[in-house]
Amino acid sequence: MKYPKTILDLIECYKKFPGIGSKTAERMALNTLNFEQNTIDLFCESLKNTRTKIRRCEICNNLSEDTLCEICKNTDRNKKILCVVEDPKNVILIENLGIFDGYYYVLSGLISPIDGINPEDINIDSLIEHIKSNNIEEVILALKPSIEGETTSLYICKLLENVSVSVSKLASGIPMGAEMDYVDSLTLEMALQNRTNIN
Amino acid sequence: MKYPKTILDLIECYKKFPGIGSKTAERMALNTLNFEQNTIDLFCESLKNTRTKIRRCEICNNLSEDTLCEICKNTDRNKKILCVVEDPKNVILIENLGIFDGYYYVLSGLISPIDGINPEDINIDSLIEHIKSNNIEEVILALKPSIEGETTSLYICKLLENVSVSVSKLASGIPMGAEMDYVDSLTLEMALQNRTNIN
Repeated sequence: MKYPKTILDLIECYKKFPGIGSKTAERMALNTLNFEQNTIDLFCESLKNTRTKIRRCEICNNLSEDTLCEICKNTDRNKKILCVVEDPKNVILIENLGIFDGYYYVLSGLISPIDGINPEDINIDSLIEHIKSNNIEEVILALKPSIEGETTSLYICKLLENVSVSVSKLASGIPMGAEMDYVDSLTLEMALQNRTNIN
Repeated sequence: MKYPKTILDLIECYKKFPGIGSKTAERMALNTLNFEQNTIDLFCESLKNTRTKIRRCEICNNLSEDTLCEICKNTDRNKKILCVVEDPKNVILIENLGIFDGYYYVLSGLISPIDGINPEDINIDSLIEHIKSNNIEEVILALKPSIEGETTSLYICKLLENVSVSVSKLASGIPMGAEMDYVDSLTLEMALQNRTNIN
């Protein structure tokens, strides 16, 4: 005895999400049966739109439904500063702080030779081209503080050696409010090395 | 700055699932962008089918794409035993054991006055009717060992007082392999009360 085909198909779809296994997918498929007609309609519509409407901004590679994304359309921002992120989600994270008024450039992930992801797979060439042709003065590398993030930052830095642009990366250190004795030693080491002068 | 509308719509859809909050829904919506065309097609198709194809078996109320479910279509099973469950998922759970060959009856949940769920909301009348008209000899109440499950079991038992049918419920006790000192006291009490003679 198995579920009807519709349910089995839905379970297969939900299992495609990272971190969702058979049990959760089954529960979600059964939950779907309780959705109202207009939810199902919106769900189908937006699933289809992910393939037809969503595209990448032609300037910065951010998610968009137009040629240019909301940010690149806005000409009032600071054209001299470019913040490089690995994922469109991080654009939203930084935008929500409300303190950055430059533009963004979205890479397609991070360099990770172990996963077969090389510099040419994540649009680094076009980033460098973009920096050169737009006379950017400061590049902020807002990449994850992991091996892959550091590798990518170093690689970009290397390619910009002969370009007159200032390159910075996000500070590594102790998160605000953290208990000192729960902070891992690598983070503590970085916090000590990167200590900031306060007098 | 917000996500494009398609992504926001998808986030709203994913948030409809119990236990999925904004962060997870956002991650799932972004994951959806990586789905292949045929996954999106299958996803839409099966979402629509939940409203058009999936219905309830006319005999037992189990999920089905036909008038009768797979189990009720099978005439070789034991017609004298009926297993009552609260959810179509539990039919699959018990079927997968491979040791039960009777038929099932699926209630639409459990009696829960606090949530406004009364006996008439969960098909108990038609269950009683089904038991009487099919000359069932044993009813196994496979309901959750909670206040709601016990209430529902007692209620069904009461309605069957004057019907010549044997009514049983699943054993409560210590789960196989459990550490005795981690078992809660109510479970231990039930295990002691319901001890089974082994000589």
